[in-house]
Amino acid sequence: MRAEIIAVGTELLMGQIVNTNAQYLSRELAALGIGVYWHTVVGDNAERIAEAIRTARSRADLVVTTGGLGPTRDDLTKEVMARVLGRELKVYPPALEKIEAHFRARGQEMPESNRRQALIMEGSTPLPNDVGHAVGEALEEGGALFVLLPGPPRELQPMFEKYAKPWLAKMNPDLPIYSKMLKFSGIGESLLEQRLLDLIDTQTDPTIAPYAKEGEVAVRLSTRAATYAEAERKWAAVERTIRERVGEFLYAEEDIPIEAAVVRLLTTRNETLAVAESCSGGLLAHLVTNVPGSSRVFIGGIVCYDKAVKRDWLHVPDELLRIDGPGEVSEQTALRLAENTRSRFRTDWALSVTGVAGPAELEGKPPGLVYVGVAGPDGSRAFEEKWTGNRETIKWRAAKAALYRLWRCLR
Amino acid sequence: MRAEIIAVGTELLMGQIVNTNAQYLSRELAALGIGVYWHTVVGDNAERIAEAIRTARSRADLVVTTGGLGPTRDDLTKEVMARVLGRELKVYPPALEKIEAHFRARGQEMPESNRRQALIMEGSTPLPNDVGHAVGEALEEGGALFVLLPGPPRELQPMFEKYAKPWLAKMNPDLPIYSKMLKFSGIGESLLEQRLLDLIDTQTDPTIAPYAKEGEVAVRLSTRAATYAEAERKWAAVERTIRERVGEFLYAEEDIPIEAAVVRLLTTRNETLAVAESCSGGLLAHLVTNVPGSSRVFIGGIVCYDKAVKRDWLHVPDELLRIDGPGEVSEQTALRLAENTRSRFRTDWALSVTGVAGPAELEGKPPGLVYVGVAGPDGSRAFEEKWTGNRETIKWRAAKAALYRLWRCLR
Repeated sequence: MRAEIIAVGTELLMGQIVNTNAQYLSRELAALGIGVYWHTVVGDNAERIAEAIRTARSRADLVVTTGGLGPTRDDLTKEVMARVLGRELKVYPPALEKIEAHFRARGQEMPESNRRQALIMEGSTPLPNDVGHAVGEALEEGGALFVLLPGPPRELQPMFEKYAKPWLAKMNPDLPIYSKMLKFSGIGESLLEQRLLDLIDTQTDPTIAPYAKEGEVAVRLSTRAATYAEAERKWAAVERTIRERVGEFLYAEEDIPIEAAVVRLLTTRNETLAVAESCSGGLLAHLVTNVPGSSRVFIGGIVCYDKAVKRDWLHVPDELLRIDGPGEVSEQTALRLAENTRSRFRTDWALSVTGVAGPAELEGKPPGLVYVGVAGPDGSRAFEEKWTGNRETIKWRAAKAALYRLWRCLR
Repeated sequence: MRAEIIAVGTELLMGQIVNTNAQYLSRELAALGIGVYWHTVVGDNAERIAEAIRTARSRADLVVTTGGLGPTRDDLTKEVMARVLGRELKVYPPALEKIEAHFRARGQEMPESNRRQALIMEGSTPLPNDVGHAVGEALEEGGALFVLLPGPPRELQPMFEKYAKPWLAKMNPDLPIYSKMLKFSGIGESLLEQRLLDLIDTQTDPTIAPYAKEGEVAVRLSTRAATYAEAERKWAAVERTIRERVGEFLYAEEDIPIEAAVVRLLTTRNETLAVAESCSGGLLAHLVTNVPGSSRVFIGGIVCYDKAVKRDWLHVPDELLRIDGPGEVSEQTALRLAENTRSRFRTDWALSVTGVAGPAELEGKPPGLVYVGVAGPDGSRAFEEKWTGNRETIKWRAAKAALYRLWRCLR
């Protein structure tokens, strides 16, 4: 099956955003055994959208569009697709009810334009939007498949995963491709790849593909098989080899972030966590509280950005914090922050992060120098980390490193 | 002038890399006054590359290709382009000398395939590669312009900047396009658009384009002009109308997030901020500390996730927090959190966020119900907000709403 992905949006052609949806969908379609042969981007212009759809239909078996499902007059994908395929648009009532409920809950009247987000083509399969308002849809027409998805990645990805993927798996005549994600923390992408290079280079079935994302790395094993059990048998040997080489960094066998693995372990152990953050500035708490159910194990945190907060709220002694002492950015301060956070929040575990996010130096220490403290039932430890990167990168790495250190204690 | 960007590379269609070159070139071409109307991605396949070039030539005045200039058999762009345009390939001697010198310096013999990187079409203008080996080129053929650039961004960007851009500026007869971003908070995309609909629909020069991103909305004004000052004169009247209608929500005249506007105002006023976060779980502090220079005004924060943290650390009285009282998710608790955070951190301003991020209810209150508290030198206020969406969406909206409320007090 040959696929084309058409992204609709002038903001892509202006260079305001990058077409990450095409990358996400290309990977996902490959995993389903569907080869992507073209990416196309067109602006919010009815004539050019129609031309792009006609061209794609003439050369591909599957046409996936992204964007142009919103409420504004610039959102044209559905109308144009309906015209090209000769179908009528009609309201999909559950979507309309959801939009109306949204405005009712805010005591506002629904602007008439928002109705458009609830339209789908006659005879198509609705793809619900659990995150936003614009409903997606999928249909077969003249031997080709069409899937219409919204533009924002946070709407597109869950819609694809939950609704479009099962539909495509059913419609695709080829043997499905099954995948397994192995997620690693505490090891860089290049080191992981170096340790697995011979496998990546020589293995053709199952394929082994490394990925990196926001301080975590993943390896995806994929193979075509009739069932998941058959796929598992096909990748069992190579998975064993990977575990022998880098198993100590493997925190999950599914695509979850390290904070979800930590929350899961704490829940199982019935233990609690608090955090003290200096340079990560709230990101560590934000990541933990992104995990549904985290409120059962996460008690709270302090963003001790200013020196006075470290001293007054967490009782780190002045002689540690002084610039002629170890300083705010030091192993000793990280340790004391973790220990005092644990005792003051009365939790089983506490994490601390103190470092230099940049762009400027702090206490004569360079951006990227970070100390992570872990305090638990069996005592406390601190770790020094050094990275390069901009402010946001260093915050992300610091928060992910703290979670990795806790995960090692909990597993 | 209408441009199309063709990226050549199977790795893009596999989703291994994202097409950042298209974004970079789109921005650069827009700045030159060249509108990009299509992005196309094709794999390393001669027939499909030829088809893409022919299609682009039929509809665009400028065709820019990226990728496929390397030494391997998969690198086909130059050969295919030469065939489509009916031109011969010949060696560009300075490029060949550079490649030969590279191998000589390493005491290696140059593989014959590397010669291909030094080929250009007869009659074309070479675009030197100061970073790598593959030479680029630019030419005019039958009234259309063609520019061939390498795939790696670290080679493409300097080549474009230093050699392709001056060539295009000389060949392009049009005036450059200037833009201005107006950023709004506290107003939804559809409501903003509704208030500006007549302007958006009738205005063709300058153009008015609305955008939405993570709880903020933007309007971009664009026009062609000889200078920025002339562009400003052209959009002055419509900008005035926009300000009259939605000026109360306008927080910046450049593309910065609301937290940057807040940090800037606090810095100017020489005032400080602390935060208390329940349902936003650290995200509010994270956003503020993403802003370089925030450490001058942001003192710290408390993530008071558990009820006990609200009581013990921020002294919210038990009778407020009790489920048979107003409860943790209430206007009264938001107020008290903000007031006590301000006094305990000894800051000029404090923000509080308490609500239900979901997926489960809390105190019988639905996900999406959020209270924001603002405490400042002139007293305190709380605001009720209601949203729909998943856990992360509600956290984002809550954090952005808190920043918006503070911004209104500071401006």
